[in-house]
This record gives sequence, C-alpha cells and structure tokens, in this order.
Amino acid sequence: MGEAMGKLRRTHMCGSLRIDNEGQEVTLMGWVQRRRNLGSLIFVDLRDTSGIAQVVFDSNVSEDTFNKAEKIRSEYVLALRGKVYKRQSINKELPTGEVEVFVEELKILDESETPPIYIKDNDDVAEAMRLKYRYLDLRKPSMQSNLKIRHKTAKIIREFLDENYFVEVETPMLTKPTPEGARDYVVPSRVNPGKFYALPQSPQLFKQLLMVSGMDRYYQIVKCFRDEDLRANRQPEFTQVDIEMSFVDIEDVLAMNEKLIYKIFEEIKGVEISLPIARMTYDEAMNRFGSDKPDLRFGFEIKPLSDIVKDSQFKVFSDTIKNGGDVRAININGYGDEFTRKNISQLEDFVKTYGAKGLAWIKLTNEGVTSPIAKFLSEEELNNIISKMEAKEGDLILMVADKPSVVFASLGSLRVEVAKRLNLINNNEYKLVWITEFPLFEFDEEENRYVAKHHPFTHPVDEDIELLETSPEKVRAKAYDIVINGDEIGGGSIRINNSQLQERMFKALGFSMEEAWDKFGFLLEAFKYGAPPHGGIAYGFDRLIMLLTGSDNIRDVIAFPKTQSATCLLTNAPTILGEEQLKEIHVSTISNE
Amino acid sequence: MGEAMGKLRRTHMCGSLRIDNEGQEVTLMGWVQRRRNLGSLIFVDLRDTSGIAQVVFDSNVSEDTFNKAEKIRSEYVLALRGKVYKRQSINKELPTGEVEVFVEELKILDESETPPIYIKDNDDVAEAMRLKYRYLDLRKPSMQSNLKIRHKTAKIIREFLDENYFVEVETPMLTKPTPEGARDYVVPSRVNPGKFYALPQSPQLFKQLLMVSGMDRYYQIVKCFRDEDLRANRQPEFTQVDIEMSFVDIEDVLAMNEKLIYKIFEEIKGVEISLPIARMTYDEAMNRFGSDKPDLRFGFEIKPLSDIVKDSQFKVFSDTIKNGGDVRAININGYGDEFTRKNISQLEDFVKTYGAKGLAWIKLTNEGVTSPIAKFLSEEELNNIISKMEAKEGDLILMVADKPSVVFASLGSLRVEVAKRLNLINNNEYKLVWITEFPLFEFDEEENRYVAKHHPFTHPVDEDIELLETSPEKVRAKAYDIVINGDEIGGGSIRINNSQLQERMFKALGFSMEEAWDKFGFLLEAFKYGAPPHGGIAYGFDRLIMLLTGSDNIRDVIAFPKTQSATCLLTNAPTILGEEQLKEIHVSTISNE
Repeated sequence: MGEAMGKLRRTHMCGSLRIDNEGQEVTLMGWVQRRRNLGSLIFVDLRDTSGIAQVVFDSNVSEDTFNKAEKIRSEYVLALRGKVYKRQSINKELPTGEVEVFVEELKILDESETPPIYIKDNDDVAEAMRLKYRYLDLRKPSMQSNLKIRHKTAKIIREFLDENYFVEVETPMLTKPTPEGARDYVVPSRVNPGKFYALPQSPQLFKQLLMVSGMDRYYQIVKCFRDEDLRANRQPEFTQVDIEMSFVDIEDVLAMNEKLIYKIFEEIKGVEISLPIARMTYDEAMNRFGSDKPDLRFGFEIKPLSDIVKDSQFKVFSDTIKNGGDVRAININGYGDEFTRKNISQLEDFVKTYGAKGLAWIKLTNEGVTSPIAKFLSEEELNNIISKMEAKEGDLILMVADKPSVVFASLGSLRVEVAKRLNLINNNEYKLVWITEFPLFEFDEEENRYVAKHHPFTHPVDEDIELLETSPEKVRAKAYDIVINGDEIGGGSIRINNSQLQERMFKALGFSMEEAWDKFGFLLEAFKYGAPPHGGIAYGFDRLIMLLTGSDNIRDVIAFPKTQSATCLLTNAPTILGEEQLKEIHVSTISNE
Repeated sequence: MGEAMGKLRRTHMCGSLRIDNEGQEVTLMGWVQRRRNLGSLIFVDLRDTSGIAQVVFDSNVSEDTFNKAEKIRSEYVLALRGKVYKRQSINKELPTGEVEVFVEELKILDESETPPIYIKDNDDVAEAMRLKYRYLDLRKPSMQSNLKIRHKTAKIIREFLDENYFVEVETPMLTKPTPEGARDYVVPSRVNPGKFYALPQSPQLFKQLLMVSGMDRYYQIVKCFRDEDLRANRQPEFTQVDIEMSFVDIEDVLAMNEKLIYKIFEEIKGVEISLPIARMTYDEAMNRFGSDKPDLRFGFEIKPLSDIVKDSQFKVFSDTIKNGGDVRAININGYGDEFTRKNISQLEDFVKTYGAKGLAWIKLTNEGVTSPIAKFLSEEELNNIISKMEAKEGDLILMVADKPSVVFASLGSLRVEVAKRLNLINNNEYKLVWITEFPLFEFDEEENRYVAKHHPFTHPVDEDIELLETSPEKVRAKAYDIVINGDEIGGGSIRINNSQLQERMFKALGFSMEEAWDKFGFLLEAFKYGAPPHGGIAYGFDRLIMLLTGSDNIRDVIAFPKTQSATCLLTNAPTILGEEQLKEIHVSTISNE
C-alpha cells in the first residue's frame, strides 16, 4: 500500500526547477526514473510530465526517512518536500541540471513492481509490448510530447477558427448507414429491433445540412470510423478536422485554410511557410510526378517518351503504345554511379509490386551509354530519349512501358523510393501544394460505371457542367487536396447547392431518381428550401500530427491505438458477448464457413 | 437553378449594419425572412446567422433586377450589393433598424419552395416536424443562439483547462464492453468474427490509465453512449466534459472546478457566483430535501415526525414506523390558502407516482386547523407536529408515511412540484451546491449484494477504509456532485490508486479476484506499476447547456438529436441492413418473439 499525501501539496513541477529556485522549499511529486545509493547519500531522479529533477537524501534526514528512501525502486510514486540547492557538478543534459533538492520529508504514494518495459525513448521493445503496457509506454518523454503537440495543434486550430467566426457543432455518432454500406461500422438498435445505426465515416452530410441551416461557418474536431482492411498507417477510428463555410467559392476556402496552415506551422514548428501555397492541377501532378500527392522535396520528374519510341523496333515499347499504353521515364540525375546492376534489379522488383512488367534503364557513364536495351533502339531514338530526359554523364534513366495507370503508379513510387535510398529527403523541409481540378468522376471497371472520385456532392467546375451528360470523363471538380511532403493532409470541395444540379449528378452516376431519393432523400429535400453556396475541407488530424511530430507510425500519435487487426492489446477489445446480451439487441453471431 | 455568386463577395454580415455604415457599399448574403411589395418599392428582410437587415429595391435598379426581385419568396438565398442609407422610420426592434440597403445588384443563389415550418421562434409546431426538417428548425434565432452558446461554453472550458495545464487527450470510441454489459451500445467486428466493441459509457478507465501514464492533468469534451430507456431529457449519445488530475485530494479537485464553474457563469450569464460553493453531505441533502440533487432556490424543507407520532393512535403513522418506516413532512409555509381540497388531492396523486400510499395534510387557516387526520391524532401530537414544522396560520403541512426511500422520493419531488405550481422558481437565480460524502455502496435488492454507488474505482473516505469488510454500508466515498438548481450537472470522485485497496473494494462488491481480474485486469495490472493519487469529475455538457440557455428540452441544445425511441426523424436512422452486409460482420438479426 502507498501512503496518503496527507498535507503535502505539490508546489513545483520537477522539470521547472532552475537556479532561480535556489534556497526555496519545494514539494515535488512524481515517479522514480532512477535511484543510486552512494553510501551515505541516495540520489533519485524524479520524473513528472514536465521533466526530471534530482533529489538527494543525506544524513540530515531522519533515520526513518532514510530507511524508507532505501526501499525506493524504479517507478515508485513519491511525494517529497525539500530545499533547492545549487549542484556542485552541473548536469548539462538536464534543464534542471544546475540544482538538486535535499529532501526533508518523503511519502511513498505508491510502490511499483519492476516494469516490463523501460521508461525511455528509442528503447528497442516489440510494439506489442508497448501497446499491452500502453500506460508505461506513454510515460516516455517522446510519447508525452506527441500527445501534447496533438493537444496544442487542436488548440491552435480551434483558436484560429473561433477568431474567424466558425462555430464548433457536434454531429451525431449514431447515424444512418451509408447507401453502399461498405466500410461502415454498425450498431444494432435495441429499441428498434432489426435496425442498425452506423458510425460516421465523416460528418459530410450533417455539415452540409448545417450550411442549409444557416450556421454559416462550421467546424468540428471529430472521430470518424472506417471499417477497411488496415494498412500501416490506418486506424479503425481516426480524427478529422472538419470545416465548412457558406457563401464561398474555391478561392475563399483555400485562402482561409492557407492562413490556418500557416499558423499551425508557425506555432508548432517555428516555420514560416510562404503564402500563397503553390497549386498544381491533378493532370499536371500525375504527368510530372505520377501521383496526386507528389513529394516536391526532390526532382526526378516523369517525362513522356511515347512520341519518341512509338515506332521503335523495341517491341516492348512500341507494342505497349499500340495497345493504348505509354512509355515514360525519370532521370536520376547525378546519382547514376550509385546504382549497380544489382541495385537497379532491386528497383525493378520494386516497380513490379506496382504492376509494372519491367524496368528499362539507360546509364550515362564516363565510358558512354550502358543499357541492356540500347541495342534494340536506334541511335536517333537513344539520342532523343537522352535529350528529352536532359540526361548527362552520371545520370540514370529509368523507364516503364505499360498501361498509363501502371506507368504512373510505378514511376511515381519509384522516384520516392530512389530519393529515400539516396537519403535526399530532408525531414525538416516542408513542401506544400494544393492539388486542384480533380476529375469529378472516375470509371469503376468492376461496376462498369462512373463513380464520384470524391463524393457525389462535389460541385463540377462551372464551365464543365454542360459536359455532365455528354462527356462525364472530362468534367473537372471544384475539389482540392492539400499535400505536404507527399502526404495528403486534407481535402475538400465546393459542394453542389441545389437539387436540380444534384439530381443531374446522381443521374451521371447511374442512380435512378428513386435510388437517389432513397439514399440521400433528406439532403435533396433540404436543397429545396434554399441552400447557400458552400464548401469545405477535412484534415486527417492523425496524419497532420504525424507530420508535425516527425512520427512514421500513426500509433505514436494516438494515446490508445489499435493494432492492424483492429484489436486493443491493452483492454483486449473486441470481446465476445453473452447470448442474453445479444438477444437484447436482436442479433446473433454467425459463422461464415 | 440558382445563379453563381460570380465576383460578388460578402463584405458584411446582415446583423452587423449600424448607422456608422451609412454611405458604404456593402455586399450581403442570406435568406429572405420576408418580402413586401409596396408598388414601386420592394422590401426584403434578409437574414443570416448574425441577424436581419432590411434591403430595398426601388426604381433606380434595372428593370431586370426589379423583375427578379419580384420573384423573390421566403427562404430564397440572395447575394446583393448596394449602399447603406439611414432609414426614415427607425425600427427599434432590430439592432440594424436605423439603416437599410438600397440594392444595386442582385443574384438569386438558390430558390426555395414554401417551407413546411415557419422560421420563427416560439412557433407552435409539432416537435416531430421540427426534427424532420431540422435544417429549417435550426434557422431559428433561438436555435442558432443555443448552438453558439454551446460552442462558447466549450471554448471557455477549454481555455480555462488549457491555462491550468490540462491536456486534451482523445480516448477510444471502440472499446471493450463493460463487464455487466447492460447499457452498452456494441459494434460487431468484421476482422474478429463473433467479437464486439462497445461504445464508451464514459472514458473512466482510460482517463485513470492516463493518470497512471503520468499525463498529470487530462480533459476531454467527448461523446458517450448509454443504451437505456430514454426519459424526457436523455439521449442515446451525450457529451461529457471529462476531467482528471493527478496528485490531488478532494479539496484540490473542488477548488479547481469552482474556478471553472465561476468562469462559465461569469462569461455566459454575466453572473458572479459566490465562492466557495456551498457544500452539503449526502445525508443532510436527503434528510432536508429528500434528494441528492436538492433545488435550493426555495424552502419547504423536510422534517422528521416519527418521534412525535410513533405511538400515535393513527395506525397509518404508528404501524408504518413499527415496520421500519418513517413519517416526514414539509410545510408549504405562507401558501396554505392557495390549496383547495381538490388541489391537495392532485398532490396526493402526484406522490402516489413515487410509490406513496397517501398524503396526509394539516392546514392552518384563520378558522383553526383543518385536516382529515386531525381526529386521529391526540392534541399533543397535533401541537407537536405544528411546532416541529414551525407552522402558523396560512401554512399547509404535507406528510408522508412509508418506507424511508419512498418518503424521501415523494416529499423531495413534492416540494419541487409545489414550488412549480406556486411559480416560486426564479430561473435567473442560480443556487449551486456540492453534495459530498456519498455512501460508497448501496444495497441492490435484486442482486442481494452491495453495488458501487458511483463506480468501483471510487476511493473510500480515509477513516472509513477500515470499515470496508465489517460495515460496508457505513463507508463514505470521496465522491462529490455539483448540483445547480436541482440538477446534477457533474460528479466525480477521488479514485483508488493502488491494487491492494482496489482488490478490497472488489471483494466488498462480492467479486472473486478471478472475476475482478477478468473484468478489470488491465487496470489492476496498471496499478502494479506506480499509480499517483488522482481524481476528477465529469460534467453532463448537454445538461449544462440546457441550464445556461434556459432550455427545458435537451433536443433544443443538440443540433441533430434523436427522439425518445432513439430514431433520427431527419435521416431515418436506424435502418435495416442487407443480408450480405450483415454476413460480412458475422451477425444475423433475430426476432425475439
């Protein structure tokens, strides 16, 4: 059992002690980071959320207290009162390193068994252990710092939006399942047998309804849910900064958000990003970087070679082009010598994971051109390629021939992979870009119809509206993503704000009006009664915090995250329920074998 | 179809226009509250979230614009540019009533059909219509104001807690079902067949784990869920202001929260509450007011009469007392004349809903004592009752004889009911009180064992710990509720912070250690590794906002609430799911007939 605090009350945080406190009586409370016995002296590093202070027990304390101090072990929780002295040997590693506290009174508030993981950063411990003993893992300074940065960022966002007349409105967690239903987490209703709520994938419809309600400017920092197979940096529940504004077009939304982003970087990173943030259309991003989330911290841009090689004797190229494919390349300029044949073969394996059948290459060395395919190309073709790629001695050209989606995916990922291997990526540099003019639709081969690239409420670019029925593939959306260092941190759009246009949109998506009304009737109904032009954005808050804390694991910015199989190793959620309980909510479990 | 805004950009909010704006060109956007044609003039009241401005179309606008203005109907969405003029006849009802805007350019951004409900406060429309057309209902100034007060209160709370070094940490929504399971909303897992998450009833365990993590001071404004039969002011999902602090005892928690409550009342209501807030033990509250959430804005305190009537010839009284019951009464002092026999009979019906078998009464009129039971009482008994109740001419004594729980429930509710009927309750007065020293346990007759009155992690009062095993019914808890005007707005406790005491608590609750570990193993495990003394509080945010906005319907402070049968009339949630979708999550629906 621990002792009660009694009359002791904390006067200072451990990490706050400085030479200015010399001579003061202080009461500290915290955990034992480490204890050392030096004969007649006992030194303890006492840790709280603010940092560490050194405290000392010497022969001036009572025998009782000294004996108690001898029992202290790591992670014991202590309360102690004592006087601050200047240290004889300053510890420059610690902000409190100029002083130490000589203890006069000690209470052991709680004891601790030997903890199963060390409380120290960068300790090489299996993540499963960190998650099972999360309360110990969170004691680490890095984790405390991550959660504090998360808090501070939310605070900055709220302050900025409050100043700009946004109102935070809470939208429901128990909502209507989405029409397609996939990805919904659902909740059986006890009161309404056989019926289910869904947890929101986003508050999209509610925030639009708030605009129809005249709320003018809305935001919410809110949990959203998506039941999809979990990739590395996905969680079943995630946090979204959700923003919507009335009486705006694209420029208004981007301008407001640029100020917000500026403020976040200024206050969290001390970095002044330059405004306005660069913009790039979707088409340009795909053509130059093979991705709608290009990392602009390095070059290696994609260039088209199809015109040069479309009639080539090299059938791999010319046949691909004849079958509707493409040949494109990147130039690893200046780093050709870093890549052996073996390295290049690894890169080929890498692009194969994106569906590419191979990776053609040309290396320009001081002994001339080296390339396994040079013999199949005419001299003119070779020269034109080199010229098009602006290649010179020391460069390496990497080429993919395939259907366009594969070419872009392969080369887009390859340029990032190469930059990583070459250590060219500066994690303290921030390259921001708005990606704009997304296609409104994309063709879903499985369903053999157009589907909305963002969602079916996205407003088309005004001059493209007339193409909705005739050339849907050409219609651009009033949509935008903010991409930072190759990560999509947020995205949004101007929304459709009247029912006629919304109905045309549904028609283009192949919904009958009956289906559309069945699925989104309440929104179509709302649009009958005067909806303002409106638009907004949603930021992935977890991703933003990863960026701001330099974390590459989403679980490092969430207090109690789930594993990739959506379990909580700390609490063992999810669990089996009793039959009685299931009966109450009118469901039973089934085995799908 | 509406028109696009084109180059028009809003320069002013409707409600912001003042005489200082005279002569300025402004662009306003909003909804048509009302349109009047006066021959060559058209007047429109344009409404946005800030208020209403009068705009005028006269013969100076183009014929096109005037014709367009003639088409305007209620709830059309307009953008218009014009010049601000001083009005000839000032409208003192409107903050903008000194000016009007003569329109130069008009765009109809969206049209509106005739809305099914009027956009005006206090309109007598069925709540079902208000909920179905929530986006119209939210256009009402009162609803906009409620949501803004809600936002502002959250902001004040966050600012206060931020200044006091609390860190907002998000805890999971997909958690482990609670042991008893009742009241949990559950979520089937697709990835873990046959298993379920629960939506949190509160973040209790996680916030305690955060204290064990050394996070020191935590808060969160967070959705919680409880699947219970919905009474008038309950919602399946509700918002909690959840707070926890380390290295504290009761006084520290109360002091911090008194400052918070002071700030909320000061900033939202302009009311300075007096600190420290009054305190009353649970026993005192029950004895004087028959409730642990007493409304202190009026008297009518309960007094015990058992000693006086325990040997009375009036068997209703004396037999009740012999059988372990009680006789208690309230004195409606000064209002006796307001109650006829018929009124008193209504009050009797009222207490019967609380289980009372009857309501005895004594009225002191200017003609002496009137009472149907006077004839059964000795003169001494009657005089002693009158004296004990400090009754005088014009008073009415209302008595209940029953088992104590019924006596308290009946009289506690009766004093409120009487005060309401007499219009004695001042809604602009705020009486705050901390209720303290709750019993740690209460006896559950159904389960025939003690259960935790708050929750099993509540710390006993230090000097009562030794009674845990011997006299659990006497153990008081370090628990406290903040009660305002008879509503429990928040409650909390100091928590147990070591596993030995926690295990004794579980034992007192009749759990075997195996059960306890099965249910709360991760918390007991956490307590092995050094837990600080900690405690906290949770406020019912919806209730707090009801109090601050003077709403008596919880749905008036929630943007998209559910009905008492837990449905959303706007979206029709919950809904039926397809077989395929259910199969994916390994459940099927069952009928319980």
